[in-house]
Amino acid sequence: MHFDIDPINDYLESNRERFLDEFRQLIAIPSVAAQKRGIHECADWVMGRLRQLGAEVQQFALPNDGSPVIVGEIGAGERVLLVYNHYDVQPEAPLDLWDSPPFELTRRDGKLFGRGTNDDKGELLARIQAVEAWRETYGELPLRIKFIFEGEEEIGSVNLPGWAESQQELLQGDGLLWEGGGYDEADRIIMAEGCKGIAYFELRCRGAAYDLHSSLAPMIVNPAWRLVWALNTMKDSQDRITVDGFIDHIRPMPQPTIDRIDALPFESERMRANFGLSQWLNAMEDETALRQYYLAPTMTICGLESGYTDAGTKTVLPAQAMAKIDCRLVPDLTPEIVQDLIRKHLDARGFEDIELVPLAGEHPAMDMQDSQVRRAAIAASQAVFGQDPVIVPWFAGSGPMYPLSTQLGIPVISAGATWHPGGRAHAPNENIFEEDYFAAIRFMAVLIDRFAAMK
Amino acid sequence: MHFDIDPINDYLESNRERFLDEFRQLIAIPSVAAQKRGIHECADWVMGRLRQLGAEVQQFALPNDGSPVIVGEIGAGERVLLVYNHYDVQPEAPLDLWDSPPFELTRRDGKLFGRGTNDDKGELLARIQAVEAWRETYGELPLRIKFIFEGEEEIGSVNLPGWAESQQELLQGDGLLWEGGGYDEADRIIMAEGCKGIAYFELRCRGAAYDLHSSLAPMIVNPAWRLVWALNTMKDSQDRITVDGFIDHIRPMPQPTIDRIDALPFESERMRANFGLSQWLNAMEDETALRQYYLAPTMTICGLESGYTDAGTKTVLPAQAMAKIDCRLVPDLTPEIVQDLIRKHLDARGFEDIELVPLAGEHPAMDMQDSQVRRAAIAASQAVFGQDPVIVPWFAGSGPMYPLSTQLGIPVISAGATWHPGGRAHAPNENIFEEDYFAAIRFMAVLIDRFAAMK
Repeated sequence: MHFDIDPINDYLESNRERFLDEFRQLIAIPSVAAQKRGIHECADWVMGRLRQLGAEVQQFALPNDGSPVIVGEIGAGERVLLVYNHYDVQPEAPLDLWDSPPFELTRRDGKLFGRGTNDDKGELLARIQAVEAWRETYGELPLRIKFIFEGEEEIGSVNLPGWAESQQELLQGDGLLWEGGGYDEADRIIMAEGCKGIAYFELRCRGAAYDLHSSLAPMIVNPAWRLVWALNTMKDSQDRITVDGFIDHIRPMPQPTIDRIDALPFESERMRANFGLSQWLNAMEDETALRQYYLAPTMTICGLESGYTDAGTKTVLPAQAMAKIDCRLVPDLTPEIVQDLIRKHLDARGFEDIELVPLAGEHPAMDMQDSQVRRAAIAASQAVFGQDPVIVPWFAGSGPMYPLSTQLGIPVISAGATWHPGGRAHAPNENIFEEDYFAAIRFMAVLIDRFAAMK
Repeated sequence: MHFDIDPINDYLESNRERFLDEFRQLIAIPSVAAQKRGIHECADWVMGRLRQLGAEVQQFALPNDGSPVIVGEIGAGERVLLVYNHYDVQPEAPLDLWDSPPFELTRRDGKLFGRGTNDDKGELLARIQAVEAWRETYGELPLRIKFIFEGEEEIGSVNLPGWAESQQELLQGDGLLWEGGGYDEADRIIMAEGCKGIAYFELRCRGAAYDLHSSLAPMIVNPAWRLVWALNTMKDSQDRITVDGFIDHIRPMPQPTIDRIDALPFESERMRANFGLSQWLNAMEDETALRQYYLAPTMTICGLESGYTDAGTKTVLPAQAMAKIDCRLVPDLTPEIVQDLIRKHLDARGFEDIELVPLAGEHPAMDMQDSQVRRAAIAASQAVFGQDPVIVPWFAGSGPMYPLSTQLGIPVISAGATWHPGGRAHAPNENIFEEDYFAAIRFMAVLIDRFAAMK
């Protein structure tokens, strides 16, 4: 009934080194959206690869010199599978913690290291190569695929919602395969039905016109202290968010969802060993940690900077202080609500002088339906990995899933990717297992077959 | 009775460009003690200049590859004037805020810009050149001078107290001329009888073994938040130090001292304009600000660092966070007391995980006696500037005055230097007025005469 995977496997063996060489080329382009580095070069590379595949390729310019969206269409038939990935990556800093150059694909201990291997260039390329393998082995695809590749995911997909709203016809489809998915600590296959939203902003405080000699401290405002005091009002030392009104916007989860989370496998010990931690936050039990992980919104200091930070002593009274903060959002929190609440909260406490600068925002997305794309992904997991996947309500990370799925009414699943617990996404020594890369290609090939056959 | 200043003035005019060229050479050596840059090169330059002057020069190595102390002796007679300055400077960062290269002496608008012009290479060299001018004009000095030049002042003179204790014979003298002193906003001459002490330390907090994806925040400790919460317990939002027991160690000042402070001229408006500030801390009145400036100990965040601090967004949960803090100390606070109190304070609040790393410490020093060196400095001020100086109980800055004066029983005065309100010590665009440089030379020459004549 279903197609035979063996010829695909043979094709992968014959083309293994070429496929890895393409991966090497893609990793070598430092497409850091936060710094507007290498974006157009990377977009060109991806378009070239899609054209080589035989796809019809369109490039969409975004406002404010944003990274272009690339759409590649290929295949035949009525049924349409949308595929979302992104070609931008996180900044590579701190450079000195990398064991090999971040933009040089490096094989070591069965792994492939490099910025973007894990998040998200490996997945993106594996899915293109899967289509090639299918077509070279079996001829034309039994469905149409629309690859939607953006280049601003790591800076919060600032322009994607507006673009999606203007492209509703192009974005019609029967299902959406999202990025993400992979393996947990016990090599179980993980998929997700949604993702948290995010509000990313800076808090900035200013004092004197320039850094002063610290002897002046008795009579001059210190923006670093003011930032500390302001932050302290936003989260208490038990890690509870204390911004006025914030928790009122959290939609209570239905008990079945909580039960499903409680039933999820959780390799607590191994995860903590990976992270070098002896316990979870506030020494919480595993069950609590797991519920929090999926259900809690966050308010994370991602960065702090003020004054002198090099080696040794410098006795300055800083002129400015800055905190970068991200809030991961669960329904019904939105970036707009969060920024508004924080502004009012700070003003009510005399911190009108602290500037809030929004940098990125995404709505949370959920899709708990028993959809065809979800069933196809389950079937592909059974075929490729010989196991039923674990399906989580959402990944605790964020992405622009809301404008491409929830808002357009398109069923979505995150599945078939190469994430693993030691993958160090967003950190130095980001990596995937080499064999997982080829498994992702096989998964995509089988998914095409299964989703095309769905009635 | 007193010597005639005119021949000295003539000598300065004839040698003006050579003196400035020497200043240029000294500024060009980036003797940043915090980074162990250029220290030995600078020490060699200073020793060469002292030998050229005709002084007997000794170099004292300090422990742990510390910057050497240089002692230069010159002159004749029983009476000994000790002269303290330092040849090290603060780091030049942030480089992009300098209008001219920090280690290139640059003339602009009647000022001399460069790191160390103000603090403390200008003073150091002016005093050497004053001795040259005297000797070339009048022959041998009427007293003996011992120049004590250290190279670790900007990192808290970590090794000087131990060295001073081992060199009590060498350090005998009838009076000690300290660094510092200069002009206030109304061009009044300012001198000081002491300086605050200092405790400089880092607070360091660690979380996971490496920066993590911020989606993990619901269950993993964030060292940046912990640092915020810990700091918040140390100082309240009214800028009051709340470390347990801290304020109990502040010795009440006698009313006459407070009266003297209240009577000090205070160019409040001009100072604030210089700093770009519309009001003092907590909108305090001028009288309060002035009292605080002299009498209050401080606890200043000099630097904060955690996670991602470059442009744009990076969604990381930081693995570590760090604050650099200096406390300016009034009697009877000492660095040891402060570190001990903070350690206990943090432990009592569950912050045992926050490491306290002492980087530098100095005791406060006071000398309110009517000493001969003080009277000589007043006389020199009258002669050179035609005005009585304003004598403050101490500078709000710190220095190793305690081991060289208080502990050895040697009267001390800070006087005759080139500080001015826009001098930007420790900051970008550090500068002095060119004419103040030559005034400092004249002051030193007259001080030699007046102090030698004291009975």
